[in-house]
Amino acid sequence: MTKISDIFGKELTVVNVGLTSMAESVADQDVKTVHLDWVPPKEGIRRLRVTKSGVNIDEANQQVVDRIKKALPVLVGMGIARDVIPGMHDRMILHAGPPIEWERMCGPTRGAVMGALIYEGLAKDSAEAEKLAASGGIEYAPCHHHHTVGPMAGIVSPSMPVFIFENKTFGNYAYCTQNEGLGKVLRYGGMGDEVYARLKWMETDLYPTLDRALQSLPDGIDIKSLIAQAMHMGDESHNRNRAGTSLFLRAIAPAMARTCDDRERLAKVIEFIDKNDHFFLNLSMPAGKAALEPAEGIEGSSIVTVMARNGTDFGIRLSGMPDRWFTAPAGEVEGLYFPGFTVKDANPDIGDSTVTETAGYGGFAMAAAPAITQFVGGSPQMAIDSTLEMYEITFDEHPGFTIPVLNFRGTPLGIDVRLVMETGILPKINTGIAHKEPGVGMVGAGILRAPEKCFRDAYDAIAELC
Amino acid sequence: MTKISDIFGKELTVVNVGLTSMAESVADQDVKTVHLDWVPPKEGIRRLRVTKSGVNIDEANQQVVDRIKKALPVLVGMGIARDVIPGMHDRMILHAGPPIEWERMCGPTRGAVMGALIYEGLAKDSAEAEKLAASGGIEYAPCHHHHTVGPMAGIVSPSMPVFIFENKTFGNYAYCTQNEGLGKVLRYGGMGDEVYARLKWMETDLYPTLDRALQSLPDGIDIKSLIAQAMHMGDESHNRNRAGTSLFLRAIAPAMARTCDDRERLAKVIEFIDKNDHFFLNLSMPAGKAALEPAEGIEGSSIVTVMARNGTDFGIRLSGMPDRWFTAPAGEVEGLYFPGFTVKDANPDIGDSTVTETAGYGGFAMAAAPAITQFVGGSPQMAIDSTLEMYEITFDEHPGFTIPVLNFRGTPLGIDVRLVMETGILPKINTGIAHKEPGVGMVGAGILRAPEKCFRDAYDAIAELC
Repeated sequence: MTKISDIFGKELTVVNVGLTSMAESVADQDVKTVHLDWVPPKEGIRRLRVTKSGVNIDEANQQVVDRIKKALPVLVGMGIARDVIPGMHDRMILHAGPPIEWERMCGPTRGAVMGALIYEGLAKDSAEAEKLAASGGIEYAPCHHHHTVGPMAGIVSPSMPVFIFENKTFGNYAYCTQNEGLGKVLRYGGMGDEVYARLKWMETDLYPTLDRALQSLPDGIDIKSLIAQAMHMGDESHNRNRAGTSLFLRAIAPAMARTCDDRERLAKVIEFIDKNDHFFLNLSMPAGKAALEPAEGIEGSSIVTVMARNGTDFGIRLSGMPDRWFTAPAGEVEGLYFPGFTVKDANPDIGDSTVTETAGYGGFAMAAAPAITQFVGGSPQMAIDSTLEMYEITFDEHPGFTIPVLNFRGTPLGIDVRLVMETGILPKINTGIAHKEPGVGMVGAGILRAPEKCFRDAYDAIAELC
Repeated sequence: MTKISDIFGKELTVVNVGLTSMAESVADQDVKTVHLDWVPPKEGIRRLRVTKSGVNIDEANQQVVDRIKKALPVLVGMGIARDVIPGMHDRMILHAGPPIEWERMCGPTRGAVMGALIYEGLAKDSAEAEKLAASGGIEYAPCHHHHTVGPMAGIVSPSMPVFIFENKTFGNYAYCTQNEGLGKVLRYGGMGDEVYARLKWMETDLYPTLDRALQSLPDGIDIKSLIAQAMHMGDESHNRNRAGTSLFLRAIAPAMARTCDDRERLAKVIEFIDKNDHFFLNLSMPAGKAALEPAEGIEGSSIVTVMARNGTDFGIRLSGMPDRWFTAPAGEVEGLYFPGFTVKDANPDIGDSTVTETAGYGGFAMAAAPAITQFVGGSPQMAIDSTLEMYEITFDEHPGFTIPVLNFRGTPLGIDVRLVMETGILPKINTGIAHKEPGVGMVGAGILRAPEKCFRDAYDAIAELC
């Protein structure tokens, strides 16, 4: 057989681009080869670089991720939704995901809306609640339109206490309710007296105890730092929040001890937090929202700054087009189910908790949280591979959030719709699973990809500008 | 060149044992090869199987590890050392590691002894303390001879409060003081008014608050479970105890809230624990001691059930010879030093904390704790490799302690001196580093191997029985 080096009459070094099999056949002939990992953009996907108005998209994106990296989201206080969330009023209910009217709402969102109306005292039972919910007398709006995020159904009603976050770098605020725990809870569409009683206790006991403690901490609690620390303790701060919950308790417990004059109430508050490893989710989410909002509205940017689901639709918004939702039907979740439930019981993907992936942690940092696979399925290797894959579709890495097992590499940050379309790799999300019928609650947890259509439509919208 | 397959006239599959270069030269000839990772025992090391009295060593070892695996160490209460530690008296001081007299004690142990005498009110300053310490009026004994373990110098004096552990499976007890934190602290040989004041506060405030809380918990606190959970949260429970400390606080805080009537004291106790990520070390250590003692005394066993250092000598004891110490000079620690300190300031390896490696966690579980490398040096890959290497010298794996990143494999359990000598692999330990002079305290943290001589002597002792 003629060798390549014979043809050229000298030693060669070959740079191979694309298919590895090409490099291998050259290397077999003792030719030094360097392999470049590259695949051509998918058919019909051209690289978008500069808009017609002259904006360099990479530069715009750099601005976006720089703003996210500079963010300093701090828990500064608490308040009642109607008093503190801008635009909130007595007949408004906020929900997760893109805009949706009662008629199109999925089961768990309906259940949570009805449950919230009963909790608010606006309806005495589910029949009355359903009637009111469908009457046109309630204004529905996405949490995201009110600087708020809500896990799963994401229902925020006027009387609910919320955490108040300030992004100290940019001065903007974000809001989120307190986490109820797992199982039959409102955010999973759970209804029933125990759900309303828990919500009431969270309003009358949990909230004032946390609130008073926070009032005694003039600097608030730096949640960005807690997320970063928790990432060295096996959390990814979306579906694993064990370390974050622990660190939050450590941060606030001395202040609670000083400001709570009822020993039994203090004990119950600590027990409530201790028994709910997801307590920190409702802190990691608004931290992400507070970090992302100042990065919205950078002209020409192809970075996703909102990614959220209402259980019917999955929606994204780009920094460069901050008021436009690109939506697609919400996907099915592959997951681990609680005993007695199967995939047939599952509602499609739901919740604003994808704010964590959008902000550079959550599912994107799954490599930091190998033990999460006991909750959402998969293997520790899958968790590592997921993070590595997400670097392919993100514009940057977050130096504030590092993953020990990847040699302290920063997390994948800034989903770029161009990279999503060029690579064909869709964002990977881990999530809880709600029962599809109103009233039941949580049935499992799992993993899925975001639907392609949102990203294709967003890409096309950017392409039109170029 | 003649090919191997030509010689034999047919396709071959070759099993290669030992050197990989042999397999490679065969594989180069397109012969299918299977490589067996195997090295011959080191020179002069024969495989020990059965003692002259007819004990099968493997069977004895299996009994040992079965007992360790079945252990259920629970924190059941607290008490003052003189009241609760068997054999303790008013003029006794316990220390880490194998037996040692004042004359041979290293600097940090001397410092800690003198500090303890001042704390006890038996001496008014260091000159008086030194005189008393050397007078013969104090009885020194290893913690290990009194069901106790102590980190670093490991000094336990009569007035010190200790945690009381019960191994619920076997009914034995173990003891350990409360952890003081890092820096200038007694266990690192630190001396000075702030050291004694802290110890006094730990006796008058911390201890009663924890003790009263524990008294209200009839089942105590299951520390084995906390170690297992912490291992899914980036701890290895020797030099990384951030998750363990957090989980312990979560477990005891509600009880403290209910039983402490002084809000400011409660706040200070929580703050003290929160500010010391090593607080849990003094719980993970006695948990190991409680687990290991029932595994002592199994005839013919070559498993290490005690491994401890006093800063002068490193010592081990075998299950099969529970009263005999095999010692060697304590080693030098390669580490990361605090600003202003270097390897020249370092005392040799010291402390009973190697009880954690002996019991199947600590340095042996370093793969679970990649972030520990920021404290002890090395890389996350080194942490994983360390654990993988320790499987080579351990008899079993601990099903109760699993490492997520190794696909939830159980930790290496039961150091077998036969395997240590056959492979030449010495146990790898991570540790804090004390200043070699009395009075200074902690100067860094690092990693080292146990000295070969102890293992060789222990092997020889077993060999004599065979």
